Amino acid sequence: MTMTHDNPSPRRWGILILLLAVVFAVSAAGSWVTLPKISTWYAGLTKPSFNPPSWVFGPVWTTLYAMMAVAAWRVWIADRADGAERQMALAFFWLQLLLNAIWSPVFFGLERPGLALIVIVVMWLAVAATTVRFFRIDRVAGWLFVPYLCWVSFATVLNAAIFRLN
Amino acid sequence: MTMTHDNPSPRRWGILILLLAVVFAVSAAGSWVTLPKISTWYAGLTKPSFNPPSWVFGPVWTTLYAMMAVAAWRVWIADRADGAERQMALAFFWLQLLLNAIWSPVFFGLERPGLALIVIVVMWLAVAATTVRFFRIDRVAGWLFVPYLCWVSFATVLNAAIFRLN
Repeated sequence: MTMTHDNPSPRRWGILILLLAVVFAVSAAGSWVTLPKISTWYAGLTKPSFNPPSWVFGPVWTTLYAMMAVAAWRVWIADRADGAERQMALAFFWLQLLLNAIWSPVFFGLERPGLALIVIVVMWLAVAATTVRFFRIDRVAGWLFVPYLCWVSFATVLNAAIFRLN
Repeated sequence: MTMTHDNPSPRRWGILILLLAVVFAVSAAGSWVTLPKISTWYAGLTKPSFNPPSWVFGPVWTTLYAMMAVAAWRVWIADRADGAERQMALAFFWLQLLLNAIWSPVFFGLERPGLALIVIVVMWLAVAATTVRFFRIDRVAGWLFVPYLCWVSFATVLNAAIFRLN
């Protein structure tokens, strides 16, 4: 990566911190709405056989959120890339993050798995579009999004199963 | 505005349609969570003397969402602006939209005016930062955000009053 006038090094690190802050704010808000429901409303739902134990979700999401922020950061500072391409890729990133932020209040907050399923399907499309666009700009950023896309695919199936079973 | 290779004219209109679609999806999701609570939970709350009649909110928000999308579009396609500046301004735009999308599920969905107050204060900061950054890039975009900033200021006071009175 080349250093340009636009993005001197200290500013680059500032952007990474900013992205981590926003992503982990979404993560914290999600946990805040989710945790009180795990042992109450969620415990009472019929779960499919492939439902992972609850302790899995915390470390998985924390890792995925960190990877997501680093991926967006790499695309943000990818000087080689065309500005318009980068702007569109980041728009999809923000869109998927917005949908990610909405999913927990809908599923756990409103206790509406059916409505949350609509959110996560649109979110899956946005994550897939982000992954494709990130790959075009920075290969590492693309790969950082692949585990997230896999996890959201799994989460979509899980959400659909919970909706069907309850 | 000059036409460049990066953003040919048809693509520009596509971007406007995309931004309008995302903004009005947020708007629709907000209404969807809000409307069933207006005549039920919200009707039962003590409101301050300056609380506007309910019919005001629909047309005001519709207008503000449209202005918001057009403002973001002008910044997006502002070829004269520095790419890094534009990217940062749009990041603040997405951040404020994310907080905007979360506010209704928190206030009306979870029925938590106190928690919603935290969201709207952070949102106010994000809207203010977006307005300042939009002004630097495109004066029209900046002005398109001013009524929104005023309305969010008012909404913050209203949210705080409702929290205090209930």
